[in-house]
Amino acid sequence: MSGCNTVSAIVNPAGSMNVLSAHEVSKLHDTTHTGLYSLFRQCALAVLSCDTELDDAQELMNLYHDFDIKIMQEHRGLQLELINAPACAFVNGELIRGVRENLFSVVRDILHVFSEIEAHDLLQLTDPQDITNLIFEILRHANAFIPKTPPNIVVCWGGHSIGREEYKYTKDVGYQLGLRGMDICTGCGPGAMKGPMKGGHIGHAKQRIHNGRFIGLTEPGIIAAESPNPIVNELLIMPDIEKRLESFVRLGHGIVVFPGGPGTCEEIMYLIGILLHPANRELPFPFILTGPACAKEYFEQINAFIGDTLGAEAQKLYEIIVDDPVTVANRMQQGLHKVKQYRKDHSDAFYFNWKLHIEHSFQEPFEPTHENMAALALEPDLPKAELAANLRRAMSGIVAGNIKEDGVEAIRKHGKFKLKGEPKLMKRVDKLLASFVEQQRMKLPGSHYEPCYEIEH
Amino acid sequence: MSGCNTVSAIVNPAGSMNVLSAHEVSKLHDTTHTGLYSLFRQCALAVLSCDTELDDAQELMNLYHDFDIKIMQEHRGLQLELINAPACAFVNGELIRGVRENLFSVVRDILHVFSEIEAHDLLQLTDPQDITNLIFEILRHANAFIPKTPPNIVVCWGGHSIGREEYKYTKDVGYQLGLRGMDICTGCGPGAMKGPMKGGHIGHAKQRIHNGRFIGLTEPGIIAAESPNPIVNELLIMPDIEKRLESFVRLGHGIVVFPGGPGTCEEIMYLIGILLHPANRELPFPFILTGPACAKEYFEQINAFIGDTLGAEAQKLYEIIVDDPVTVANRMQQGLHKVKQYRKDHSDAFYFNWKLHIEHSFQEPFEPTHENMAALALEPDLPKAELAANLRRAMSGIVAGNIKEDGVEAIRKHGKFKLKGEPKLMKRVDKLLASFVEQQRMKLPGSHYEPCYEIEH
Amino acid sequence: MSGCNTVSAIVNPAGSMNVLSAHEVSKLHDTTHTGLYSLFRQCALAVLSCDTELDDAQELMNLYHDFDIKIMQEHRGLQLELINAPACAFVNGELIRGVRENLFSVVRDILHVFSEIEAHDLLQLTDPQDITNLIFEILRHANAFIPKTPPNIVVCWGGHSIGREEYKYTKDVGYQLGLRGMDICTGCGPGAMKGPMKGGHIGHAKQRIHNGRFIGLTEPGIIAAESPNPIVNELLIMPDIEKRLESFVRLGHGIVVFPGGPGTCEEIMYLIGILLHPANRELPFPFILTGPACAKEYFEQINAFIGDTLGAEAQKLYEIIVDDPVTVANRMQQGLHKVKQYRKDHSDAFYFNWKLHIEHSFQEPFEPTHENMAALALEPDLPKAELAANLRRAMSGIVAGNIKEDGVEAIRKHGKFKLKGEPKLMKRVDKLLASFVEQQRMKLPGSHYEPCYEIEH
Amino acid sequence: MSGCNTVSAIVNPAGSMNVLSAHEVSKLHDTTHTGLYSLFRQCALAVLSCDTELDDAQELMNLYHDFDIKIMQEHRGLQLELINAPACAFVNGELIRGVRENLFSVVRDILHVFSEIEAHDLLQLTDPQDITNLIFEILRHANAFIPKTPPNIVVCWGGHSIGREEYKYTKDVGYQLGLRGMDICTGCGPGAMKGPMKGGHIGHAKQRIHNGRFIGLTEPGIIAAESPNPIVNELLIMPDIEKRLESFVRLGHGIVVFPGGPGTCEEIMYLIGILLHPANRELPFPFILTGPACAKEYFEQINAFIGDTLGAEAQKLYEIIVDDPVTVANRMQQGLHKVKQYRKDHSDAFYFNWKLHIEHSFQEPFEPTHENMAALALEPDLPKAELAANLRRAMSGIVAGNIKEDGVEAIRKHGKFKLKGEPKLMKRVDKLLASFVEQQRMKLPGSHYEPCYEIEH
Repeated sequence: MSGCNTVSAIVNPAGSMNVLSAHEVSKLHDTTHTGLYSLFRQCALAVLSCDTELDDAQELMNLYHDFDIKIMQEHRGLQLELINAPACAFVNGELIRGVRENLFSVVRDILHVFSEIEAHDLLQLTDPQDITNLIFEILRHANAFIPKTPPNIVVCWGGHSIGREEYKYTKDVGYQLGLRGMDICTGCGPGAMKGPMKGGHIGHAKQRIHNGRFIGLTEPGIIAAESPNPIVNELLIMPDIEKRLESFVRLGHGIVVFPGGPGTCEEIMYLIGILLHPANRELPFPFILTGPACAKEYFEQINAFIGDTLGAEAQKLYEIIVDDPVTVANRMQQGLHKVKQYRKDHSDAFYFNWKLHIEHSFQEPFEPTHENMAALALEPDLPKAELAANLRRAMSGIVAGNIKEDGVEAIRKHGKFKLKGEPKLMKRVDKLLASFVEQQRMKLPGSHYEPCYEIEH
Repeated sequence: MSGCNTVSAIVNPAGSMNVLSAHEVSKLHDTTHTGLYSLFRQCALAVLSCDTELDDAQELMNLYHDFDIKIMQEHRGLQLELINAPACAFVNGELIRGVRENLFSVVRDILHVFSEIEAHDLLQLTDPQDITNLIFEILRHANAFIPKTPPNIVVCWGGHSIGREEYKYTKDVGYQLGLRGMDICTGCGPGAMKGPMKGGHIGHAKQRIHNGRFIGLTEPGIIAAESPNPIVNELLIMPDIEKRLESFVRLGHGIVVFPGGPGTCEEIMYLIGILLHPANRELPFPFILTGPACAKEYFEQINAFIGDTLGAEAQKLYEIIVDDPVTVANRMQQGLHKVKQYRKDHSDAFYFNWKLHIEHSFQEPFEPTHENMAALALEPDLPKAELAANLRRAMSGIVAGNIKEDGVEAIRKHGKFKLKGEPKLMKRVDKLLASFVEQQRMKLPGSHYEPCYEIEH
Repeated sequence: MSGCNTVSAIVNPAGSMNVLSAHEVSKLHDTTHTGLYSLFRQCALAVLSCDTELDDAQELMNLYHDFDIKIMQEHRGLQLELINAPACAFVNGELIRGVRENLFSVVRDILHVFSEIEAHDLLQLTDPQDITNLIFEILRHANAFIPKTPPNIVVCWGGHSIGREEYKYTKDVGYQLGLRGMDICTGCGPGAMKGPMKGGHIGHAKQRIHNGRFIGLTEPGIIAAESPNPIVNELLIMPDIEKRLESFVRLGHGIVVFPGGPGTCEEIMYLIGILLHPANRELPFPFILTGPACAKEYFEQINAFIGDTLGAEAQKLYEIIVDDPVTVANRMQQGLHKVKQYRKDHSDAFYFNWKLHIEHSFQEPFEPTHENMAALALEPDLPKAELAANLRRAMSGIVAGNIKEDGVEAIRKHGKFKLKGEPKLMKRVDKLLASFVEQQRMKLPGSHYEPCYEIEH
Repeated sequence: MSGCNTVSAIVNPAGSMNVLSAHEVSKLHDTTHTGLYSLFRQCALAVLSCDTELDDAQELMNLYHDFDIKIMQEHRGLQLELINAPACAFVNGELIRGVRENLFSVVRDILHVFSEIEAHDLLQLTDPQDITNLIFEILRHANAFIPKTPPNIVVCWGGHSIGREEYKYTKDVGYQLGLRGMDICTGCGPGAMKGPMKGGHIGHAKQRIHNGRFIGLTEPGIIAAESPNPIVNELLIMPDIEKRLESFVRLGHGIVVFPGGPGTCEEIMYLIGILLHPANRELPFPFILTGPACAKEYFEQINAFIGDTLGAEAQKLYEIIVDDPVTVANRMQQGLHKVKQYRKDHSDAFYFNWKLHIEHSFQEPFEPTHENMAALALEPDLPKAELAANLRRAMSGIVAGNIKEDGVEAIRKHGKFKLKGEPKLMKRVDKLLASFVEQQRMKLPGSHYEPCYEIEH
């Protein structure tokens, strides 16, 4: 199998990796191959599979079942030993430097986020302020804050599985953003998560910006399905999807949404649900939905869905721009100026959106079990923000059932998720999901998609 | 006309621009609009037309006939005032920084090369050593030498007018070169001069190489027809084609040739003619002809032409690799190692190929007048190097007649160039040129090509 | 009073200061002015009193009794408000940048070391490995590790109160060390802690070393008495003297001891006690006692004291070099080469001396109360390392009684410390201390010294 | 003789040294040991004698009569072979980096200034504008212009032979200038040329200024007598004293004059003579005479001399500040703000004082032969600027007779210079010179001073 070419090598740290104590090294050594080790190995493999076209973690793990990784303490610092690693990460036996940096970001985050923090039961936090503090600390530990920089991080959301024309469009938008000096943050997989970075990079090159940031914000559950591209020069691994979403909206200064499937829909619901809160009414938050001409209908559909479910107020939170990368970039730039002014006026940090109010219902980890999915209240008369929270959870569960390891396994064992609720609303949801299936937005094209859910009308 | 959007602006220096004396500023001011000023204006316009799809200098000058540029001395240094400059060089009214840097390279080279040096009649030099010294000084003045760097400049030659598949291939080769840390130098126009830079840039990004060099080596006669892309981060303007060619082979450490037309053929003849000299026999000089699968026939044709005209010895100087970017990059890397070892063994500089012997016949400026073209000795019984020199001149004349301002003007006035010589040889030449016409390698596709030459069999 | 010129100002962070969370800021705000705040204020004042000639913390606090400091969260990050700060830290109303950096090191360490770590009762650790891990973490958090640098940190110990000739000598030695590229680490007060930095800085300048490290390692108990000079470009505040001493020997690669009083003697006892342990026998540890010609007798005295109390084996651990800065620097350089080789051979980190074995008796915080001082076992038949540990404690107590705030207060309340033990040994100790008094090594010259101890023979 | 310890070594370039062409190397090779070579050898020796206490070029040349230097072209660039070079420039066999950089500045300037420029007879220029352009070009070639930097170069003039208290004062002033971010430019010898640099360096260190400029402006005639200290990090060698003086006032933004002898007096006369010109009346030019308390009388004497010879208008051009480094630095800082504002208002460059008008009488090289000295018109009824020019020449001749190689030789051959003029004026001059002799400002203390001049009353 061609993807199975492998290389074994010893690699030295690159990037911001800190030195480790003897104690920390021993935690990662972990000969019993349980706990952190397996998480570490999986994330490392994802980073090394930088050219993979798969979006199936299990398949990837099978393909490189004999891959192994060991931490070695060495006189000049730390080293990693890679055994049977994917050959695509190497050039003439040497690990591509971008991959190397991302690999050591994995060491950093797995150690810090999952070892230090889990040790203190910090993930059981319930006070919203404590959760936000935890996110702040994880991002700070990863050096994600650059104090004096004015707001310029544009988060790009959108599908990992998009068509050629849509992909090209994400590059064009990224290029225009990059030409204007903006940095890009995405979920770090393929498709709409990769295109803006490629385009942004060329934009930066023309402007001679050498320290442009291409931030990939991921989580262990998804990283293997959406491998970070080596253009990502800051890889951040958050503990779960809820903390990842909160990181997007606190670290990023504006959001561009490209066409996508249920994951993208989850992100839109998340942001709308938060921005609907009265405490956030005055907060400027640039939020643009955009795609090429061929995506016009797609956005009409999304817009209608939002109007029907969350109302006209929700529709006012974003702007839809079709087929016009220059305008997208200019509007985003104007939006960022407003963000800057607002933060100055309210003495808020540029690098972290402390003022954004997030209700606990958007922070609380949602475990997409069959029970939890079935229990979701999907009723039109709920407060809009609460309905958005539940729609977010429903979409999150479908993403898990589609491509996250645990979710796929649960579907295999127990059959499809069942979603129920008020019939008219459920019909609306069904129609939207069916359109994602039809447009091949659920999984990478070529693979057959078998829905992981059933809508009970 | 959409290309005619213009912007007026005042721009500050960027890049390695030195400060100017009052005396130098006055030289560029030149109110009578003769001499340096018109050269300066034309090169500046070429740099500013960074997105143009034209390869016709005259057309460009007409399009922006009201473009003007002025030098202003200012308290913090030097400034340029641009009047009615092409809008594509600006983002929201601000000049793209890469364009800005290249613009000031124009100031630097026009001043230095054409003012200082012409002042001393240095262009009338006849001693080969003096010409080489002059080239050395121009390149040094432009900070093109980076002393301790091992050989890693790969010159990419090839057509400005190539097909989509060939273009993609030049990107792939550039990517593989970039991944291996090699820098790219081209003639800085579109097509095969742009592709390797785009690819190389992504390769560098993945390797976190922030100081990669993308050298554009041009000349006033061609710059308006082959505008430098803003990825070019070192723009060098040599006085004429002969000094430009010598710069390629003394500054570059290896050559990759992609498919192209008469310009590319000129370059191949130039390099073969030089390498055939006995003094260069031991000198390692990586020289690779490559293209995608669809270019296989093209290279067979070129190879046959070389065999028929310059013999088997000439064919041994290069290697042809079809459809294999990884092998091209690996072979080049191996070649550069040999160059490095040779320079070390012979205490030659890494940054300038002093040891390469170049006969005066390859240095002497060839003016492609109708007389000179007609007088070219194209006889198979000439010494091979001399024949190569004359074939080089013939091709050079055709390039001029196709796209250089003076040449196009001469053709308009006096009709086609007439080339004559030994009938069998002339048939060979005719066939090659006809194939260039047929493959649309003479001018950008879409434009009708009217040959500027006639072969007298 | 001239020292009382004050300035009030708002200052922005400099140096490696990380951004703070809302939670952390609130900890430092602390309106009740208890806990961290008073520690923070005292350390900040010490850093701001960069030109003070005092060695009396209480006097300093009195002098600037209306000094106040507040942390402000601000849109671009963190700010400090200084009220009635010593004018000597400012130039035309602006804080000297070196002072500014050190001030933010105080924020960093007070927060991290005293807040985070005390919160987890980490200072109650008893396992030697845990204590070492804690020290490692504090130093790492302060970015004190620079992974790939070969061993070149020379710790300079010696008195804060030394004569002009001795002071000049410490500069000369620092100059020779600096010329050889070595970095300097001291306790960061005046005298022998300042001289080597001044000299080293000039040495670095001549070698164009711009990133030379001048590390000041201090503790809250001593910082106000020994204010960091602004040449110190890495200020580290350790929780107590024992952790500070361990930091010296794990972070530093070699030790130079200049003449000094009981503090210096404490340091010598500490290092000898550790190096006497069989586990450290093979470990190379450059250890040089040196001073100008006039200090010859002083070192003979110290050497005799060590011989008499700890034996000939202890005397073999160090080398005494009189009046020869070049030889000191060359011997140190040779010693560092051995350290480098040893660390390589044993795969130990360059930046932290993991292999050095330290017994718990040298780690355990010694509280110099009257009871503890009186209870010290000072008997010649103890194991040598244990005797060294107790002599270290005795000297530590005398330093506290001389210049540390708590110690001075205890003496004021309860009278002199009483030291007792085997009569001959006690006579030896008495004689040594008397010589310190006579040579004005107890307190800065000019002030009258009233012994804080009594030896019971 | 202890100064005669020598080292032979091969050294690689450091600093801004450009690569050389084969042609340039051959010029410096020069086997006949005439021309450039001897100039080059002498300047190189001066740079290498960085710790010398001599101020006698001939003595230095004798001491190292077997010193030799050779240029070698090498694959990675240029190398110098040093044979029997002064040991003080080396640490453990390796050249101190600061010395190395200055050595390659010698290569650069000897080549450029004396080879390129003399080749074109540029030193025979008579048009003031051409001379200024030449100075501009030499400084630009040496990278002495940093375009966007606001005016902050303070030139410090003063004696090479000054007392301990005066020396310490120059350090204190340098320290205060450095604390305020100002850069220092001096004639690069000992005494008042070294002190401000040492002090400035500590000031920069405290402000964490790593790119501070310590510019040494010298000339071949004086360099061997006033060796550049290795703190000098930009060494500039001008062709003669007149171009050196013009460089001081065009490159520097303000002048501080410390006590000194005839050289300092020459500098004062030069600056006064220029500033007296009506064209310079509006030009802000900070000009401060300062010294410690013990120098009060000295400046009264100088001030009286200026009043008596050049009048009250001349006295208004400078300010005398006694024993107050902080005020000197603050006044200079205020002055530089005015310079900045003036240059902005008049669109003049920050890095070169184009607007300063300099009469040809101050540019014209004055050769201090016996004839020329005797012919100087020293008459009180001359226009003041002309008288200042002649007094400048007289002082210049005395400096030459004291310490410049040619001058010393001329005195040895032909006896003392004879100065004559209006009796009262000559008495004034005699008295001033006698006071220099008495205060040991003519030569380094310790050496006997035999006047090289006679005043004819």
